[in-house]
Amino acid sequence: MSEAHALNVPRSVDAAMVRAFAIAENGPATGINPRVGCVILAPDGRTLSEGWHRGTGTSHAEVDALSLLSPGQARGATAVVTLEPCNHTGRTGPCASALIEAGISRVVYAVNDPGRCSSGGANRLRMAGVHVDGGLREDQGEAFLGDWLVAARLGRPFVTLKWASSLDGRAAAADGTSQWITGAAARADVHRRRSLAGAILVGTGTVLADDPSLTARADDGTLLPTQPVPVVIGRRSIPSDAAVHAHPHPPLRQLTDDLPAVLAELHARGIRTAFIEGGPTLASAFVAAGLVDEYLVYLAPTLLGGPRLALGDIGVATINDQRTLSIHSTDRLGDDILVIAHPR
Amino acid sequence: MSEAHALNVPRSVDAAMVRAFAIAENGPATGINPRVGCVILAPDGRTLSEGWHRGTGTSHAEVDALSLLSPGQARGATAVVTLEPCNHTGRTGPCASALIEAGISRVVYAVNDPGRCSSGGANRLRMAGVHVDGGLREDQGEAFLGDWLVAARLGRPFVTLKWASSLDGRAAAADGTSQWITGAAARADVHRRRSLAGAILVGTGTVLADDPSLTARADDGTLLPTQPVPVVIGRRSIPSDAAVHAHPHPPLRQLTDDLPAVLAELHARGIRTAFIEGGPTLASAFVAAGLVDEYLVYLAPTLLGGPRLALGDIGVATINDQRTLSIHSTDRLGDDILVIAHPR
Repeated sequence: MSEAHALNVPRSVDAAMVRAFAIAENGPATGINPRVGCVILAPDGRTLSEGWHRGTGTSHAEVDALSLLSPGQARGATAVVTLEPCNHTGRTGPCASALIEAGISRVVYAVNDPGRCSSGGANRLRMAGVHVDGGLREDQGEAFLGDWLVAARLGRPFVTLKWASSLDGRAAAADGTSQWITGAAARADVHRRRSLAGAILVGTGTVLADDPSLTARADDGTLLPTQPVPVVIGRRSIPSDAAVHAHPHPPLRQLTDDLPAVLAELHARGIRTAFIEGGPTLASAFVAAGLVDEYLVYLAPTLLGGPRLALGDIGVATINDQRTLSIHSTDRLGDDILVIAHPR
Repeated sequence: MSEAHALNVPRSVDAAMVRAFAIAENGPATGINPRVGCVILAPDGRTLSEGWHRGTGTSHAEVDALSLLSPGQARGATAVVTLEPCNHTGRTGPCASALIEAGISRVVYAVNDPGRCSSGGANRLRMAGVHVDGGLREDQGEAFLGDWLVAARLGRPFVTLKWASSLDGRAAAADGTSQWITGAAARADVHRRRSLAGAILVGTGTVLADDPSLTARADDGTLLPTQPVPVVIGRRSIPSDAAVHAHPHPPLRQLTDDLPAVLAELHARGIRTAFIEGGPTLASAFVAAGLVDEYLVYLAPTLLGGPRLALGDIGVATINDQRTLSIHSTDRLGDDILVIAHPR
């Protein structure tokens, strides 16, 4: 309420923003576009219509909400929207124009549009005489858009690095055996997160050593409804009968060690989240390159010792070069511990 | 209450056991002897007296409680005691005899005495016609006596292995620098736990590399009231001006790699808890030998990579040899995570 007060918006506008976030969740969680919600209020604060974005190629939230109104009904109304209206003619027209043409007199939004092509909507609206306030419930909006915002700002997918290790940092025993270090709850959590990612990345070494399917599966082995695109990175060739070839999505081969180039390629293909699953060589390379946005470390209650580390050399020569993280959460998953951390 | 019911003891006896645990806490937490409390009840359930053990060379709890009664007052009474009365003539006479001579008709205790010399008290009491019930609130007693019970059963100190590492299992950066991996809260926790230990053990390598003082200190650097005996293990000589020589207790040198022999020596000296602080060589040797009863793993939110591991080779060649642990707790200490685990 203090934020609403600071922005000098009526209580009805703040309530409409809460509602806009709620209906934004109706949209698809993965995809090129962000989830956005829009509520249009009459001058007296009544709700005239609601809209949300349903995914690539469909109307943006503002246009969706406007489409429910009769001609002239939006004149003098306030549009409350979770993301700054876009200023970009893509598969759909710019929302800023649509709001201006409909006669909207005020726009209140949560988060600035970080897109290089789509931003500038607020300025365009202001130049057309619309009263615009940005930043209402901005923190909520940042948290809600999370991965998508990072991808939009960096021009690459949001990168999550996952590894599972013993409490002493080993991914496998000395002879390479590692099956079931972590338990069922941790594995199920990994598969659920895989299914929410746009792509799953592994190095050729992991394909050659473990022959993973790179699918997101339920406990009973069946495929989850959405699957990440499998991406295999590195110059070594992989067998034509590798399990990854049976993935619902054809595997994307990246015959390079240039990780920024790989991420740019994925971004250009519309992939907004990348899940790095290994092995240690690829994981270490992503850490060393400073390309990790989120760490998922599954710690199993076991000790292995020996040379098979989850992370190898990450370019830290002395303590002042350490890669400092901030811990987001620590949770017990069955017998295991999941630590989620971000770069500091 | 269900336990009290199973043992068929009156409610007054169960309440007396709760009280016996409470007064046992008056005794010293570290030392050769366990903390024990005793409550003596009249046949009608009234409390006649209470006693507890105040440390080596002083009366045991039962004798302490009996000493408050006038001659004949204990006749027909019930003694409620947290540990099986001893059957051993040490610095004090056996409690079993004292209870028999005082005319106690019933003894209820929580935990069996695991001592090789002191056990057998219950049998001796029964042979004298005393009604004896063991196991009332036994779980509470096991938890309360914790370290001491392990030491008594194994004939060696309870061994706690502590290490601090990055989230990827490194104790230091590639060049050996490691200062302040963990934060102030974690360091304070280590010092508090050190001060509760009978001994603190390090290898000669750690003395040569880090020259630690091995004292338990408060935030301001002053010494905490109780200090563990510093023990330096290994055949290499250490400098005569090493910081450990300034410890309030003279350091105990153990010119051997025979860890069971070291622990037996400490036990013979009355040390019941040993805190292993490093470095990796000593830590790994204790793990490999199966001599660790409790793990304290302080995980700092940082990544280091490289070769300086908190644990080295622990003799695990293949996954089936892994040292499986059960996690007791995971706690945040400032920015760090403390994982407490036990061997499974």
